[in-house]
Amino acid sequence: MDNLHTLTISDALEAIRTKKISVRDLVEACSGQIERLNSKLNAFITMIPSDDAIKAQSPESNASSSKTLHGIPLAIKDLFDMAGLRTTIGSKFFADHIAKDDAFVVEKLKQAGAILMGKTNTHEIALGITGNNPHYGTARNPWDTTRIPGGSSSGSAIAVATGMALGALGSDTGGSIRIPASLCGVVGFKPTFGRVSLRGVFPLSWNLDHVGPFAKTVRDIALMLQVIAVHDPLDPASVKMLTGDYLLHLKDDVRARKIALGVGDFIETSDAEVLEAVREAANVFQSLGCKVEEVDVSWLQEAALANKIMTQSDGAAVHRDRLKEHPEMFGDDIRRRLDDGANTPLTDYILARRTQAEVRKRLEGFFETYDFLILPTTPIPAPTIEGHDAVEQAGRLTRFTAPFNLSGLPALSLPCGFTREGLPIGLQIVSRAWGESKALNLGHAFEQATEWYKHLPVL
Amino acid sequence: MDNLHTLTISDALEAIRTKKISVRDLVEACSGQIERLNSKLNAFITMIPSDDAIKAQSPESNASSSKTLHGIPLAIKDLFDMAGLRTTIGSKFFADHIAKDDAFVVEKLKQAGAILMGKTNTHEIALGITGNNPHYGTARNPWDTTRIPGGSSSGSAIAVATGMALGALGSDTGGSIRIPASLCGVVGFKPTFGRVSLRGVFPLSWNLDHVGPFAKTVRDIALMLQVIAVHDPLDPASVKMLTGDYLLHLKDDVRARKIALGVGDFIETSDAEVLEAVREAANVFQSLGCKVEEVDVSWLQEAALANKIMTQSDGAAVHRDRLKEHPEMFGDDIRRRLDDGANTPLTDYILARRTQAEVRKRLEGFFETYDFLILPTTPIPAPTIEGHDAVEQAGRLTRFTAPFNLSGLPALSLPCGFTREGLPIGLQIVSRAWGESKALNLGHAFEQATEWYKHLPVL
Repeated sequence: MDNLHTLTISDALEAIRTKKISVRDLVEACSGQIERLNSKLNAFITMIPSDDAIKAQSPESNASSSKTLHGIPLAIKDLFDMAGLRTTIGSKFFADHIAKDDAFVVEKLKQAGAILMGKTNTHEIALGITGNNPHYGTARNPWDTTRIPGGSSSGSAIAVATGMALGALGSDTGGSIRIPASLCGVVGFKPTFGRVSLRGVFPLSWNLDHVGPFAKTVRDIALMLQVIAVHDPLDPASVKMLTGDYLLHLKDDVRARKIALGVGDFIETSDAEVLEAVREAANVFQSLGCKVEEVDVSWLQEAALANKIMTQSDGAAVHRDRLKEHPEMFGDDIRRRLDDGANTPLTDYILARRTQAEVRKRLEGFFETYDFLILPTTPIPAPTIEGHDAVEQAGRLTRFTAPFNLSGLPALSLPCGFTREGLPIGLQIVSRAWGESKALNLGHAFEQATEWYKHLPVL
Repeated sequence: MDNLHTLTISDALEAIRTKKISVRDLVEACSGQIERLNSKLNAFITMIPSDDAIKAQSPESNASSSKTLHGIPLAIKDLFDMAGLRTTIGSKFFADHIAKDDAFVVEKLKQAGAILMGKTNTHEIALGITGNNPHYGTARNPWDTTRIPGGSSSGSAIAVATGMALGALGSDTGGSIRIPASLCGVVGFKPTFGRVSLRGVFPLSWNLDHVGPFAKTVRDIALMLQVIAVHDPLDPASVKMLTGDYLLHLKDDVRARKIALGVGDFIETSDAEVLEAVREAANVFQSLGCKVEEVDVSWLQEAALANKIMTQSDGAAVHRDRLKEHPEMFGDDIRRRLDDGANTPLTDYILARRTQAEVRKRLEGFFETYDFLILPTTPIPAPTIEGHDAVEQAGRLTRFTAPFNLSGLPALSLPCGFTREGLPIGLQIVSRAWGESKALNLGHAFEQATEWYKHLPVL
C-alpha cells in the first residue's frame, strides 16, 4: 500500500488488523509527512521521533491489536499534558514547562493503543483563531500557505489534513476546533460541555473550554470520541452520563429528521460561496429524506458576544499574575484581549452569564422543535495571513461557533465544498445537549452522500 | 373544632373534605391571627381581607374540593408577583410597584385551590437574614419578640409559626428559607436549583436564587412542593425533570440509609446547645436504623465564602442603576453590601465561579458515598434584634446554608429541639441533586419519631 498517511483511521485499523500494513510503516508514513512539511506549515511545536512514539505505546495495548486505536498515529494540541514532554500552550511563559502526568484524555488514547506523534501548534494561550504564533512559528494553511489555517488548534487541523497524523485532539472555547477544521477541510467536533474531561488541559475558560477530536471522516471522529468520552470524577466539568455507541448510531436512518437551516441577517453577512455551499448541503439533506426549514437565528449574535466577554475575562483571571508581572511576554493581540478581559466591568460579566442561561433555555426549546441546526462553521473561507488584525479576525470567525460554547451544545464541522479559489468550506451541524450520536449520524450520512472528505491538499 | 390556625395543611384538607370545617372558618382563623399579631410581629407587608382572599380563589378550583390545596390559606413572600398587588421586595424603590401577572408558582398555587392571605415581610431586597426592614417594619421572632425571626423570608416563617397561614412560599439565595425556618421553629425547604421556576420572583442572584415552601410539617412541605415543582419552559433556570410523588416517598423505609454527620472546626464553632441537639438528632436516626458516620466538612467554608461573593456581586448587577442613582434609598446594610458587590474584582468573581464547579463536583462524589449530610441549619439560635450588625450576622448565620445554594443541592430545615431559653433549633438535611424525595422522606421519619413540630409559640 502507498500513501499510508492518507488512510482514514478506520481503514488503517483494518489494514493493521489484516496485516496489510505494519504499525511501523504507518507511523513512518506520518513521520515522513512531518519531516517533509512541518518546516513549511509549523504544525508541531514538539515532535516525537517514530521510534520513541512506537515505544511509548502503552505496553498493555501494544500486545493487543484489538484495541480501539491500536497503532494509530495521533497528534495532540500543545495545551494537553503528556508526561515528560513540555506543554507550552503556545506561550513564552511555558517554553520549559515539563508535564508530570498525562492529561486524562491523553491517558485514554494511550490505553486505546494510539501512537502519539507530538504536540501541535496553537494560537498563543488558545486565545485567537489565526494560528499566527509569535513564539513557535506561524501555522499555515495546507491548501494555500499564504493563508491562516484557523485556530487556536491550528497544528492539529494541519496535521490531519496533511497526514502528519490520522487524527488529533484540540480544544475549543469559541470555535478553536471547528474553525481550523473548516479552514483546513477536515472534520472537527466539539462535544457537549461535560462530555469529555478537561483535566490536564491548560484552561482558557473554565466555563467554555471543550476538548474534542479532529479526523478526516465522521466515522473516525466517532472512533476517537468513543475512547475519550469517559466520565472523570476528578474534573469539575465532567458530567456523569452514559456514553452511547457512537459507531453503531452512524447507521441510523436520517429520513424525516427535522433540520433548521440558519438564515437571517446574522448568517447572511457571510461570503456568497459559503452560503451557496451550505444551501447545497441543505439540498443534500432534503434528498436524503430530511425535512429542512429555514429559521432566522439572528438571536445567536448575542450569544457570540457573551461568549467573547466571558472568554476574555476568564482568560484574564487564569493569566492574571503573568499579565501583571510580564505583560511584554505576551503577543500584542493576546495582551490586548487579556487587558480587555481584565477591565471588563463585573456587571457585563454577570449579564453575559445571564445571557448564557437564557440562550441555553432558548436552544433547549429550539431543539424540541428541530433535531438539528445547520449553518456555516465560518462566514468566510481562510483569509490571508497578512493584512488582518488578529483580534478582529477572532470576532469575525467565531460568530457562528461561539454560541455553542456558551450553550455547551455538541457541534460538528465537516467539509461541504470548495470556493472557486480552491479553499475548503465547512458545514456546522448542531444538535441538542448530549446528542453527539445524532450529530455524528447526520454528518456521516452527508459525508457518504457527498464524499467531500476525499479531497486532500496536495503539497 | 377550635384553633383551626394550628392545623397542619394535611389535617385541614381532611377536615374540609369531610366537612368538619368550612374554608371560610379556616381562612378566618388565620385572618384572626394576622389581625391579632401582625402589628407586633410585622409578618405581612400587604394583607388581603378574608373575603377578597376567598373570592380570589381560582374559580375552576373553587368548585372542586378535590384540588391538592383546596381552601388552604397560604402566605407569599413579597418578592413574588401576584397580579394586581404591589411587589415591594422590601424596598422603598418598589413601594408602589403593582404586578401585572402572577409569578409562575403563585399561579400554580391558585390553580391548586389555595387561598392567598397576603405578601410577607422580607429583609430588604432579600439581601440579609435579620428581617429588620427599615421601610416596612422590623419582623420579630414569635418565640421571643426581642429576637430576629431570621430572613430574608422572615414574614413567611412567622406566618407559618403563628398560624397566620398554614404554609408559605419563600426564596433562598444563601439560606433565606432555611434560616427563618430554623429560628422560628418551622419546616423550610430549598429544592434543587432548577426544580422550581423563578419566573415572576424578583431576582437577587440569577445563579443562586431558589424558591421553596414553609410549613409546620414535612408532609405539608411535600404537598406544596408537588404543586410548585413543575417545569417552566419560560424560566431560564427551570430544568425539565420528572417530578416524583413526594407524598408517596414519605413512607419509604429509611433503615440502612448512610448519613454523614457534619463535624470539624467549621461546624464546631457553633453554640453548644445547637451541637447537642444535632447530635441527638443523629442518635434518633441511628435508632431508626440509619448508619451515621462523622465526616469533617470544613471544606464547605470555602463554598460559603464563594456564595457570599457571588450573591453580593449578582445583587449589585441587578440593582446597579438604583445603587448609582439613589443609594440613599437603600438601608445602610444593603448599601454596604451592594457597594462591596459592585467593587468585587472580576477575578474574585470568576474564582468564586470556579469554586462553585469544584464544590458541586466534590459534593457529587460525597453523595456517592453518603445518602445524606446532616448539620445545624444555623450555628446559633435566634440572636437579639439589638446589638448586632446586620452584615456580620448574615456572614455568621448563612455559613451552613450557603454552600447548598452554591451547589444547588436540596436542603431541608426542620425543628430538632429547643434551647434552655426556649428558642427553636433547626436541623438541616442535605441530599444529592434531584433527591428531594429522599430528603423529605428522612425528615418525615425524624418528625414522626420526635414530634418537635407540635411545639408552637404561644403569643
